[in-house]
Formats: sequence, C-alpha cells, structure tokens
Amino acid sequence: MTRLETFPNPKPERPYLITHANPEFTSVCPITGLPDFAVVTIEYIPNEVCLELKALKYYFLEFRNKGIFYEAVTNQILDDLVSACNPLEMTITTEWGARGGMTSIIEATYSR
Amino acid sequence: MTRLETFPNPKPERPYLITHANPEFTSVCPITGLPDFAVVTIEYIPNEVCLELKALKYYFLEFRNKGIFYEAVTNQILDDLVSACNPLEMTITTEWGARGGMTSIIEATYSR
Amino acid sequence: MTRLETFPNPKPERPYLITHANPEFTSVCPITGLPDFAVVTIEYIPNEVCLELKALKYYFLEFRNKGIFYEAVTNQILDDLVSACNPLEMTITTEWGARGGMTSIIEATYSR
Amino acid sequence: MTRLETFPNPKPERPYLITHANPEFTSVCPITGLPDFAVVTIEYIPNEVCLELKALKYYFLEFRNKGIFYEAVTNQILDDLVSACNPLEMTITTEWGARGGMTSIIEATYSR
Amino acid sequence: MTRLETFPNPKPERPYLITHANPEFTSVCPITGLPDFAVVTIEYIPNEVCLELKALKYYFLEFRNKGIFYEAVTNQILDDLVSACNPLEMTITTEWGARGGMTSIIEATYSR
Amino acid sequence: MTRLETFPNPKPERPYLITHANPEFTSVCPITGLPDFAVVTIEYIPNEVCLELKALKYYFLEFRNKGIFYEAVTNQILDDLVSACNPLEMTITTEWGARGGMTSIIEATYSR
Amino acid sequence: MTRLETFPNPKPERPYLITHANPEFTSVCPITGLPDFAVVTIEYIPNEVCLELKALKYYFLEFRNKGIFYEAVTNQILDDLVSACNPLEMTITTEWGARGGMTSIIEATYSR
Amino acid sequence: MTRLETFPNPKPERPYLITHANPEFTSVCPITGLPDFAVVTIEYIPNEVCLELKALKYYFLEFRNKGIFYEAVTNQILDDLVSACNPLEMTITTEWGARGGMTSIIEATYSR
Amino acid sequence: MTRLETFPNPKPERPYLITHANPEFTSVCPITGLPDFAVVTIEYIPNEVCLELKALKYYFLEFRNKGIFYEAVTNQILDDLVSACNPLEMTITTEWGARGGMTSIIEATYSR
Amino acid sequence: MTRLETFPNPKPERPYLITHANPEFTSVCPITGLPDFAVVTIEYIPNEVCLELKALKYYFLEFRNKGIFYEAVTNQILDDLVSACNPLEMTITTEWGARGGMTSIIEATYSR
Repeated sequence: MTRLETFPNPKPERPYLITHANPEFTSVCPITGLPDFAVVTIEYIPNEVCLELKALKYYFLEFRNKGIFYEAVTNQILDDLVSACNPLEMTITTEWGARGGMTSIIEATYSR
Repeated sequence: MTRLETFPNPKPERPYLITHANPEFTSVCPITGLPDFAVVTIEYIPNEVCLELKALKYYFLEFRNKGIFYEAVTNQILDDLVSACNPLEMTITTEWGARGGMTSIIEATYSR
Repeated sequence: MTRLETFPNPKPERPYLITHANPEFTSVCPITGLPDFAVVTIEYIPNEVCLELKALKYYFLEFRNKGIFYEAVTNQILDDLVSACNPLEMTITTEWGARGGMTSIIEATYSR
Repeated sequence: MTRLETFPNPKPERPYLITHANPEFTSVCPITGLPDFAVVTIEYIPNEVCLELKALKYYFLEFRNKGIFYEAVTNQILDDLVSACNPLEMTITTEWGARGGMTSIIEATYSR
Repeated sequence: MTRLETFPNPKPERPYLITHANPEFTSVCPITGLPDFAVVTIEYIPNEVCLELKALKYYFLEFRNKGIFYEAVTNQILDDLVSACNPLEMTITTEWGARGGMTSIIEATYSR
Repeated sequence: MTRLETFPNPKPERPYLITHANPEFTSVCPITGLPDFAVVTIEYIPNEVCLELKALKYYFLEFRNKGIFYEAVTNQILDDLVSACNPLEMTITTEWGARGGMTSIIEATYSR
Repeated sequence: MTRLETFPNPKPERPYLITHANPEFTSVCPITGLPDFAVVTIEYIPNEVCLELKALKYYFLEFRNKGIFYEAVTNQILDDLVSACNPLEMTITTEWGARGGMTSIIEATYSR
Repeated sequence: MTRLETFPNPKPERPYLITHANPEFTSVCPITGLPDFAVVTIEYIPNEVCLELKALKYYFLEFRNKGIFYEAVTNQILDDLVSACNPLEMTITTEWGARGGMTSIIEATYSR
Repeated sequence: MTRLETFPNPKPERPYLITHANPEFTSVCPITGLPDFAVVTIEYIPNEVCLELKALKYYFLEFRNKGIFYEAVTNQILDDLVSACNPLEMTITTEWGARGGMTSIIEATYSR
Repeated sequence: MTRLETFPNPKPERPYLITHANPEFTSVCPITGLPDFAVVTIEYIPNEVCLELKALKYYFLEFRNKGIFYEAVTNQILDDLVSACNPLEMTITTEWGARGGMTSIIEATYSR
C-alpha cells in the first residue's frame, strides 16, 4: 500500500479545521464489477502532523480497480487516514453518483 | 411484499450516517386516483446490518400503483425500513410535486 | 368562513413534521388597496389530525380580496390553522414581494 | 377599462428595446373559477410613445377577477398594448405556475 | 385510447408559441420492466385549435404502465399530438433520469 | 431627521420574527467621498409596535449623501430602529459591494 | 459635465469586444423624487480609443442626483459614450430594480 | 474491442435529435499515467439505427485504463460511434476537470 | 512588513460581527514554486479598534511572492490580524483552487 | 519569453473546437501597481498542432508581475497563441474582478 505522508503541523497549539475535497474518486462495485464514482471529502483537526496532499492523491488512486462497497470504503479511508496522521477529529464524506436512479452519501466520524 | 434485503455493517462498532435519495418515487392519490411524485430520502445510522440498494429500489416500486396519502406513505416507509434493518436512528423525508399550486414535505424520524 | 378540514393523523404516536408551501398567496394592502403577493409556508407537527390540502387551498383563497397587513395576516393564519388542527407545534412563514424596493418575511410559531 | 397611458419616446429616431416583467399577475380560470398566477413579460421597440409604468400596473389589476384562458389573456394583452402605444415590435410572454403538475408558457409577437 | 381534447384557438390569425412542461412523466423500460421517468416538454404553434390541458394530462397517464423505448415514446407523443391538434409546428422534448450513470434527451420536431 | 413611524403590533402576546431587506441602500465613504452600496437587512421581534415600511424607506434615504463608515452606519441604524420601536430583539446586517476587490458584511444585534 | 477620458486602442486593426458592468448605478425618478437603482452594462467595439475606467466611474456619479426616466438615461449614456470614444458599435443595457412589483430592462445600440 | 450495439430507429423518416450524457468517463494521461475525468456528451441525428445504451456504457469503460490525450479521445469516440451507427450528424463534447488550475472542453462534429 | 492599520471601534460597548472577504489572494507553493489562489475570509468581533480595509489589502499583497503552505498561511494571517487589532474573537477561512483535482479549505479561530 | 509548446493535432482533417479556461490569471495594473485578477478562456480550432497545456500554464505565469492594461493583455495573448499554433480560428476572453465597483470582459477573435 502507498504510504500516506505527513508534515509537521505549523500551529499544533491551536485546534483548527482542514478540509480537502476530491471530486475524482472512483472504485469498483464488488457485485457487478462496474465502476462507481464519488466526491470524497476529508475534514479534520490536526494534531502533530498534517496530511501531505500529493501522497493523499496517490492513496486515492489505489481504489481505482478495487472492488468495495460504499459503506466499507468510507470507513476504510477514515481508518487509514486516522492511522496516518492521528488527528484530534476527522470526518470522511463520500457522495456517490446515481445507481438505479438513487444517489447515496456516507459520512463517518472519528473523535479521540 | 418484496423482502427488503440487508448485508452486514462493515463497521458496526462506529456509528456513522448513510443517506440514500430516490428522486423517482411515485404512488397514487387515494381520492383522485391520480399519480403523485416524490423525492424520497432515507438517512440512517446502521446497527448490525445495512440496507441493500437493489432490494430497496424494488421495495419502492411496490408503491407505484398503491393509493396512499403523503403522511401515511412516509410513516409506512419508516416503519418498513426500521423493521428490515433495525437501525440506531432513521429519518425518512418525502418531497412532493405541486398539487393545486402547493408543494409538500413530510419528515419522520425513528430513534431507539 | 370556509371550514378548514382535517383527517385523522395516520401515526399519532410519532411526532413528525409536515410542510406545505403555497407560492400563490395574494391579499390586499389595507392602505393602498393594491394586491400583495406572498409565498406562505406551513410547518407543523400534527397531533390527532392533519390538515386536508384541498380545504387549505380554499381557505387561502378567502384572503384574495381582503385588506390586511403582513404581520396581521401571518398571525391570523397561524391562529386559524392551530384552531383547526390543534397541532403540537406550528410555524407560519410569509415571504412578500418587493414594495418600494424592500422585501419582507414574517415568521410566527405556536408551541403547546 | 383602465386607460393605458403613454409618454413621448425620448429617442424616437433610434429603435431600442424596452422590457418590463411583472411577476405578480393573477387572473381566474374560466372553468374552475380558481385563480391562476403568471409572470408576464413585455418586450417592445417603441415608436412615438412609451408605456407609462404606473398605468400599466393598474391595467394588469383588471385581470385579477376575470375568467380567461392562458392563450386568450396573452393575446389580449398583446392587442391592448399594441393599440395603446403602436410599437414597432412587441412580444408578450406569460409563464404560468403548475396546474395538475404541468407548467405552461405562452409567447405572442406583433410586428408591423 | 384517451381522446386528446382541443378548444378553438382564440387568435388563429396570429402564429404564437405555446409551451407545456410535464415533470411527472413515467413509462416502463420494455427490456427490464423497470419504470423510466422523464420531463416532457411540448412546444407548438397552434393552427385552428389548442390542446386542452386536463385531457393532455390524462393522455400522459396512459404511458404509466406501457413498455416503450425513449426514442419511440418521444416520436409517438409527437405523432399523437400532431394528429389531435394539427399545429403549424410542434417540438417534443423528453429528458430522462440517469440509467447506468447516463442521462438522455430526445427532441423531435414536426413542421407542416 | 425623518421620524420613523410605527403601528400597533397586531399580536403583542406572541413573540414572532419580522424581516425587511433593502437591496437599495447607499451612503458615502467619508474618506474618498465616493458612494458605497449595501443590502441592509432588519430582523426583529416586535414588542408593542411594528416599524411602518414607508417611513422606514424614507429613513434609509437620509444616508444617501451622508459620509459614514460601514461599522458606524450599521450600529447607527440599529440604535435608531431600537429607539423607534423598542423591540424584544433586533439584528441589522449590511452587505457591501466590492471595494479594492474585497466585500464586507457587518452584523449587529440588540437584545433586551 | 465630467470629461469622459480615453486612451489609445492597443489593437485598432482588430475589431474586438469590451464589456464593462456597473452594478452600482443610481439616479432619481423625476416624478416621485425617489432614487432608482440599476445595473448598467456597456458593450462596445473600440475604434481608435478605449474608455478609461476611472473617468467612466466618475461620469456615472453625475446621475446620482439627477431626475431622469429609464428610457432617457439609457439613451443619454449611449449618446455620451459614443461621443466620447467614437466606437464601431456600442450597446447600453440598464436593468432596474422592482417598482410597483415590476422590473425593467432598457437596451439601446449604436452602429456606425 | 467491445462491439457497440444498435437497434432500428423507430422513426427513420423524421430527422430528430438524441443526446446521451455520461458524467462518469475516465481515461489516463499518457504522460503522467494519472487518471483524467470528463463528462462526455453525445448528440446525434439517427439514420437507420440508434445506439443501444448498455453497450455504449461498456464501450466507455474501455478507456478506463487507456493512456490517451483529450483531443485524441474525443475524436476517437466520434469516429467509433459514427462507424457504429452511421448517423446523419453527430457531435461529441468532452468536459475535463481542472489540471494545473485549468479546465478543458473538446467538441468535434461529424456531418454526412 | 506592512503595518496593518486600525481605527477606533465606533461601538465598543456592543459586541458585533465584521466580515471581510478577499477573493483575490495569491501566494506561492514552497515546493513547486507555482502560485496558489485562495478566497480569504476574515470574521471578527472587534474590541477597541477595527481593521482598516486599505491597509488590509496591502497586507495581503505581501504574500504574492511568498512561499508558504496552506495551513501555515492561514494561521499566520490569524496571528498577524489578532496582533494588529486585539479582537474578542476572530476566524480566518482560506478556500484554495483545485490542485491535482483536489480543493482545500483551512479554518482557524482565535478566542480570548 | 517562455516557449509555448505544441503537439501534432491528432485529427487535422476535421475542424473541431478546443477550449481551455484558466481561472487563476493575474497581472499588474500599470497605473496603480496593484494586481488584477481574471479568468482567461481560450477557444480555438486547431490546424496542424495543438497547444500543450503545461507550457501554456507557464506562459500565463509570465504575466504575474507584468504591468499591462486589460485590453492590451487580451490582444497580446491572442497574438502569442496564434503565433505559437497557427490555428484556423481563435478567441481569447478575459473576465476581470470588480475595480471601483465595475467588472470588465474583453473578447478578441482571430480568423484566418
């Protein structure tokens, strides 16, 4: 697996909010084998380190050919990013395009 | 009645929010016999299982020729889905197209 | 006066929210005699009965030639609808088109 | 009938376009007796005179209690305003709120 | 089949444009048997008669349980409405919700 | 100074919210002498009297040629209107067009 | 009157389009004495000179206390700017806020 | 290569316009190896056959791991679809997400 | 460094909210040397002094050629402005354009 | 000056349209020395070569510290890009943020 990278938080003494939105996330439906597309949003309060954006982008690419359900991928991204940067709080939101006429949003939060 | 199907929650130890929106819901007005159209939104925090999307879609189709009022159909969907997946919390919102120049929204919530 | 009609709440044991929006409300300014236009929104938590939509529409028509101020009409609608359906809570919002370059919104709430 | 009023075109030697939009037009359906609501837009190239706005507003009020179909009212407004100001060109557009789930737009043009 | 109804054009000597939009059209996919949903728009220049709205609404209801492709239904509506009112020109546009992630629009025009 | 006028609150026993928005406010920058433009919004819960709209409009006109800073004008409007109608609560919001590429919003609240 | 200023067109051999939009124009209604507000848009193809923006801004300020009708002010701005910069083509559009519930747009064009 | 499939045009005697939009297209940049994302729109006037949607969807999937430039992929889709259905006219539009801060649109048309 | 300037708060006895938004902020990425672009928003409750807008604009210009990360620049602006005007509360929000397909928002708050 | 780079047009026998939009363009006002910000859009029909995006981005960076008027920079970009890729047609549009309350758009076209 790609190593998520971090850099030192420039203001660790102040809790503040960082948001990154990736409108170009794609994975694969484990049942049909067809691709799914989502906007993935990361909101977190950093602790000692911040997530490095370029490595984050490569991390997301690993899902491009991976068969995984909406609920599972959202929780896995949250687990992976929490492990990588040990934040005070983090929320992952995934917004998925229409399948069978229905759209879906999954939102999971970690709090120390 | 169609059996709503479920699959195991991949992260039961973490309460998180799932939203599904169906902009293609239709039922029938029990008085006039004319069709009604709504956007139906499901928001829930899963417990041990999650709602399977394809079965959910077929469940909604059962209302296509059913005569039922806005308030009743909203509460029935909530009751049916709570029975099917036993969530920690669930909210159903139905947004109805203009009738006699007026639009309507019904929102019902279940909490354990 | 038109009798507002009601029907039995199909789920009286669960507090839930009903919203009706009427973008085609019109009354008359008591000073100038000119018509005023508003979007009227009703939000309520029903108790034992729900408001019937067709009768509600005819109720609104009674204001078409009535001279009444924004603040008075908003409170009168709230009083009339509370009397008619005895809700747990109800909010009436009226949004008025520009007069002398200014738009107005009046919002009144009843709570048992 | 209200007399539509005019004032001298300040630049009769130059053809130019005047647009007035009235989002607060209402008439009555001749079949059901229920009110209809429309946005009425007037676009015209004045000749020797321009339409005076205040009189135009009072002219529109005459339809408030008049039973008339969408197609007829649009053509009547065009005929009345052409008679009143003898323009080089004029287009009337009426956009009607949803009835039975359907919205309507009528657009009629006069050209010398 | 429902008889489409018409009424005399109030201004047959002037060509003008009538638009009706129905956001609540539904038919059935002839392959999957699942419902399709569309916004159907009719634009026409009437000749001697205009389409009556209530009958038009009932005409659309006939497709609710009919299996028919996007391209065929669009052309059939055009043929049926041209037969019913013999217009100078008519365009039918159907805009379909996402299927397999793709949306579709079909637009057909009749001109005498 | 123009006298702000009031009329008796038609429902003094119920606290409810009144909002007036004026998108056509203009004053003058005391440094450059150039005009400033703002949308001014008044939100208040009336006590015994309500603000009369026509007098309010004339009150705003007094600022048209007055040199005053954003922060000062917002607080002065709040003070003047509180004096005039003695409300339970009032908030004034002024939203100013771009100066040097920057837009500004000032929001001040009075509470008894 | 303020002198409108110009600077040499940097590319006189190529006809190209320049658009300036001023959302902060105000003049006075000659009947009521009340202020009117408009968005004024200038589109032109320069000839030998271009309009200088700062002087243009001061030119617009001259209308702040001037009583003038919508149609007259639009044509006067066109005449003044054509005189000042002698363009190949120029269009002035003025979009006015609601008066008596109606909005207005005036559009005048000069072409050599 | 996936065989694009077609079905007989239900109204070959009438030229009419079909539009399909795919917001979930992805290919790979041949230089960086990173994925690109586009909305692909097909507009065509069918001749004897129409494009079948399911096969079209599978056709688009073939680009998921293919390294190809914006300009080349747009023209190849046009060539492939023209070969498959021999239309009277066809336009392909591809709208690409931001790269280096810039977005791109490519539009190519075939006409018999 | 540019001296941020202030002026006396015209209403120090009342806590109220001031917002300034600068959509034209640009700094430089310390790794690639390429420019970054952001909308910077300042929200604060003034104490004894308010921030002067012109000096604030010049302050932002100092970042135009400065290499600095999103997280660092947001916290530095907060520190600098807090030092300059000693507010009761202040929040800085920076919204950055897409890099590698991802947008970012950083939000930091100071409270006495 | 940065060399704009090109690559061979993959379909030179078919005229087709390429659009690139850069929302992050900045130059300097030659009078005030303050930065200006624009969205720059390039639309062209390629001949034998297409513009390479990365070099195009570096080309735009050269204006970051250059003092130049709106009209001049638009025409210079058109001249530079026409020289670089010799297109069949090209249009440059620059949309500038508010200065003194006014926004500006410049649009220049080259055609062989």
